[in-house]
Amino acid sequence: MEERILMAHGSGGKLSHELITQCFASKLDNQWLSRMDDAAVIDCAGGQLAFTTDSYVVTPLFFPGGDIGKLAVCGTVNDLAVSGAVPQYLSLSFILEEGLLIADLERVIDSIQRTAAEANVAIVTGDTKVVPHGKADGIFINTSGIGRVLPDIKVSGSNVRAGDAIIISGNVGDHGMTIMAQREGLRFDGDLASDCAPLNALIADMLDVCPQMHCMRDPTRGGVATTLNEIAAQSGVGMLIGDDTIPVRPSVRALCDMLGLDPLYVANEGKLLAFAPADAAESLLGVMHASKYGRDAAVIGTVTADNPGQVVLRTKLGTSRILAMLAGDILPRIC
Amino acid sequence: MEERILMAHGSGGKLSHELITQCFASKLDNQWLSRMDDAAVIDCAGGQLAFTTDSYVVTPLFFPGGDIGKLAVCGTVNDLAVSGAVPQYLSLSFILEEGLLIADLERVIDSIQRTAAEANVAIVTGDTKVVPHGKADGIFINTSGIGRVLPDIKVSGSNVRAGDAIIISGNVGDHGMTIMAQREGLRFDGDLASDCAPLNALIADMLDVCPQMHCMRDPTRGGVATTLNEIAAQSGVGMLIGDDTIPVRPSVRALCDMLGLDPLYVANEGKLLAFAPADAAESLLGVMHASKYGRDAAVIGTVTADNPGQVVLRTKLGTSRILAMLAGDILPRIC
Repeated sequence: MEERILMAHGSGGKLSHELITQCFASKLDNQWLSRMDDAAVIDCAGGQLAFTTDSYVVTPLFFPGGDIGKLAVCGTVNDLAVSGAVPQYLSLSFILEEGLLIADLERVIDSIQRTAAEANVAIVTGDTKVVPHGKADGIFINTSGIGRVLPDIKVSGSNVRAGDAIIISGNVGDHGMTIMAQREGLRFDGDLASDCAPLNALIADMLDVCPQMHCMRDPTRGGVATTLNEIAAQSGVGMLIGDDTIPVRPSVRALCDMLGLDPLYVANEGKLLAFAPADAAESLLGVMHASKYGRDAAVIGTVTADNPGQVVLRTKLGTSRILAMLAGDILPRIC
Repeated sequence: MEERILMAHGSGGKLSHELITQCFASKLDNQWLSRMDDAAVIDCAGGQLAFTTDSYVVTPLFFPGGDIGKLAVCGTVNDLAVSGAVPQYLSLSFILEEGLLIADLERVIDSIQRTAAEANVAIVTGDTKVVPHGKADGIFINTSGIGRVLPDIKVSGSNVRAGDAIIISGNVGDHGMTIMAQREGLRFDGDLASDCAPLNALIADMLDVCPQMHCMRDPTRGGVATTLNEIAAQSGVGMLIGDDTIPVRPSVRALCDMLGLDPLYVANEGKLLAFAPADAAESLLGVMHASKYGRDAAVIGTVTADNPGQVVLRTKLGTSRILAMLAGDILPRIC
């Protein structure tokens, strides 16, 4: 292990996993953390709850399609929803840098309010800390969230089975490439905007038609490729992905080509991967295409008993290659 | 209101309250936030839960009596316990600065593990973000917490009644003055150490002998004076405090005198203020004195119907003065 924290320890990829395994899990391990799911399912007050937390350090604070406040609500709402829970209550904690324009803070709070209203969650408790100029970067936000676990829904990264269809809810890479374009001052005439969105209504529709869903996860840091690898490892299965089945917006494809990036490693903030019995795929796509956040949903592959722990990408030319977990950090601070 | 965020917006005092009222409450207000208690009590899964959040930005990361990890567990455990809940589950989210020594992170995690074990809470979910060198300051931690609300316990900042005894659980100002001494490089031969401690076991004992408790709160940022003012305003009552009844460690008194500070405005991280019917005070002091975190507990005053919203301090000489809420920020980043 490294001696010091590197940017890649926050990438969501290989070094993040090393840090979690060797540093956190070894000291704090328990039945909840060891599941490595997006939210913990806990017994509380006579029922089952999902509980999750995320800190947000995105830069810039405002970008096409969203801002750090919208991101902070959506990220936590989505972590609860993909865990098979109905998101209900959020906490909201700010670390503010001295000198921040209060008008910027107010803009972020307005966005939080709007997004929480859309996602039908209440912000019930909060905290604010201030650190001197130069000891933070504008606004950092933590949101933690609680949701009611839906009875009879059993979704987990370890529940995926050979034969499952792998579905993505829409175009890949929008959020990460939007942030990168903003940061590098690249201008596009086109439609490049973050996909940042609360997915709980879409997920509720999906679970209605497919209560036997095996797993859902939002492919944020590390992108689709990293999330697929995580789940392949957790469930001890292989995955076969069709390169030409993955929906990518032309502007994202162009920018990725220009910068030598693979959209499968670029972060999304309003997308989910679903793993469901193959015979449920058609009805799932039906409800997804009818939702504003699932219009471009597509089956991108299938789960295999072969190659456990590995994700194989099949190209249009019929060749295959292994799609590994993100190794370095192509794009820090995208969430 | 100011145009930019000042350090005093994070002080817990007057500007913090202004920011919360004018900026957060006006946009996000709901039945939970408007109570302004340390934790929200929410209906969930058929029962009642307390839910709270805090971010920790203390500097230095390690200090006599504790470190940022111990602080992050104790602060959230205490916010749940003073809300009349049994702390059960914590989330743990890190914002790490690139270049941080992993050995320092491990030391913090060890401390989190030990403190969580003492407080009998489980850390069930987590997150890690990394920001570039110079965009944070070592380690920032957010802990959010969930606890089971004890039936028949009704404690709130708005429940305090005229005639209530005001009890402090021990010496005032230890945490803040320890941090200040560390930061300024002041050395003492004496016993100066942070009081940082989980108070849930002490509080359970107190509620056993006094289930009719009206209010408990931990006087952290802004100190005892600010917390008393908050509660006086919430409950619409006055308070009369005896200057010579407030326990202060001699080393803290000496350092405060030297620096021109009033220990009543200095932060505590292992103390609580309790407001209980006067006839329960003696039995409360009995169980408190028997606990390792309540050995120096004392009645420091009484709640009055006169002077609603005001805290009056009576000196040894028989003179009185109004003890206002903290105005500026005497000591930033103490938690």
